[in-house]
Amino acid sequence: MSDVHLTLSEGHAFAMRGLTRAGLSAENAKPIADVMMSAERDACQSHGLFRMPGFCAGVSCGRIEGVTRPDVKDAAPGVVQVDANNGYAAPAIEAGMPMLIEKARAQGIASMAIIRSHHFSTLWCDVEHLAEHGLVGFAFVNSRSFVAHPGGVRPTYGTNPMAFGWPRPDSPPLAFDQASSVAARGEMQIHLRDGKPIPEGWGIGPDGAPTTDPAVALAGAQLPFGDYKGAALAMMIELLAVGLTGGKFGIESAVDDNSDGGPAIGGQFYIAVDPEKFAPGGDVAAILAHSESLFDYVLEEDGTRLPGDRRHGARERTPVDGFTIPESLYATILGLCGD
Amino acid sequence: MSDVHLTLSEGHAFAMRGLTRAGLSAENAKPIADVMMSAERDACQSHGLFRMPGFCAGVSCGRIEGVTRPDVKDAAPGVVQVDANNGYAAPAIEAGMPMLIEKARAQGIASMAIIRSHHFSTLWCDVEHLAEHGLVGFAFVNSRSFVAHPGGVRPTYGTNPMAFGWPRPDSPPLAFDQASSVAARGEMQIHLRDGKPIPEGWGIGPDGAPTTDPAVALAGAQLPFGDYKGAALAMMIELLAVGLTGGKFGIESAVDDNSDGGPAIGGQFYIAVDPEKFAPGGDVAAILAHSESLFDYVLEEDGTRLPGDRRHGARERTPVDGFTIPESLYATILGLCGD
Repeated sequence: MSDVHLTLSEGHAFAMRGLTRAGLSAENAKPIADVMMSAERDACQSHGLFRMPGFCAGVSCGRIEGVTRPDVKDAAPGVVQVDANNGYAAPAIEAGMPMLIEKARAQGIASMAIIRSHHFSTLWCDVEHLAEHGLVGFAFVNSRSFVAHPGGVRPTYGTNPMAFGWPRPDSPPLAFDQASSVAARGEMQIHLRDGKPIPEGWGIGPDGAPTTDPAVALAGAQLPFGDYKGAALAMMIELLAVGLTGGKFGIESAVDDNSDGGPAIGGQFYIAVDPEKFAPGGDVAAILAHSESLFDYVLEEDGTRLPGDRRHGARERTPVDGFTIPESLYATILGLCGD
Repeated sequence: MSDVHLTLSEGHAFAMRGLTRAGLSAENAKPIADVMMSAERDACQSHGLFRMPGFCAGVSCGRIEGVTRPDVKDAAPGVVQVDANNGYAAPAIEAGMPMLIEKARAQGIASMAIIRSHHFSTLWCDVEHLAEHGLVGFAFVNSRSFVAHPGGVRPTYGTNPMAFGWPRPDSPPLAFDQASSVAARGEMQIHLRDGKPIPEGWGIGPDGAPTTDPAVALAGAQLPFGDYKGAALAMMIELLAVGLTGGKFGIESAVDDNSDGGPAIGGQFYIAVDPEKFAPGGDVAAILAHSESLFDYVLEEDGTRLPGDRRHGARERTPVDGFTIPESLYATILGLCGD
């Protein structure tokens, strides 16, 4: 099967057509198309057009609201709260970001809670956005439960990623975005599709026994990275993303999820920090130059790279070279667009 | 060799005598004695009186200031900055905490940066303190460099722990405090002392080869937990704890450290969040009851426990039963007290 070549703007146009045809307003479709194209731009295919069928299915079956608009509330001097009103997270995040940035600059630190949202994107694009505004950013999101607590067998936590971003003077921001599970859910599914065993340590079967069979692990539970340490982070993220705001934990959203391919309901939590309020004499340039010295030290050794380096490398190429998607996905997308 | 039995108040009295004899003011010695006794109370021996020789050595050799007082600055509506003036962190943290708590309650979220400090204690006691005031707490601290970046060989990051605390209505706070390295530095040293090999995955030699010889790993580098994911956290903590404030990264403080047993200079970063500003209708009791349902779900499975459960179990016993220390440590402490 050959791949189909697209430019980023062609990909964006397909995304807009498919999402609006599924029932999203153009206003809500645009931030979703933007994040999918940020992923394709950065060669992060698993969050690119690969996600479009799921985005469309969640809305077209009526489980997720496509037209509702988020409500942004100034909840406290350091707190933005955005109610996504059962819609996708991307429009809600876009709606709340300006107030989060303004508050972080005024207070030195601020936070944003997104409630009643469906998150299906990367987090690095959000922390990079904050860092491009000169802010240090954190992002946390929960998903429906897939990950066991150490010693347990049942899916208890979402794959719950966290992201962190740090501004850099002459390069794209430093940003990492990592799941609390060893492997992404999608990687397990790709192994199943391709008939390949999964590495040891990714998952356990419903009986709690370690397995390398992706079907057994998908029916059982994923494992957290770094054993109890990753599990502690998964629990922390569950508490921040939904515990603070009374949203649905992964174990609760899993009950309502119809597995149509779109994400379950959940929440996100963001923190933004203004380095200007911490830097001696407010000299942000000096502290950023200092942090570059740490990155230089890392990169002096052969075989090392910084988080995000691969994505940033791709970012140089794809605006000119475009990107490719599998023919089967292209056919699906044409179908979603009614072509 | 037999153990010596002490009550918590006897231990505290020894700590105060030894610390003040080494050159700490009573005012600065008290918060340090308090955190060492919190550790003994919670059966966390590696942060109890075990640390007293290091605390004393750092001051008695003149490297760390024993008498200086921390300066607390209201740096922004959401930012407390405390200059430890080259003293230990514990007095600086104690001095800044009331303002951090006040700001978090007023703003919804606030942060505290401790600069020019020497940290040698647990972090869970700080996040538990915040949680006992009804706040969600984060704490981050860097150390001198011991941990390699993935693909590299050189010690690059500190063992850089982070801690997180969450209030609970009828129990001690949920709190975890975990290093970014697989193993604590002290555990490596204890294996060396006892002539035991270390487990695979803890460290590499100066040549980058995996090793189970603690002497080789101590001369080489420790490994982060969860490979690149733990390393990303170690880097994040380095940036938060000292990058924001222009302090010394682990690679910089390692250069000045005379390895007298006390900690190198570094920094800490705290975040406190007030759930009242996030809970629907400000009903904190409801969101805490909801989070208890997650903890109950975890504990329904045999063989699971929550972060901190072991410490909290010990906390019931030691105020009555006291605790024990090895005879050799007792002899050292008597020496430090001039007995």
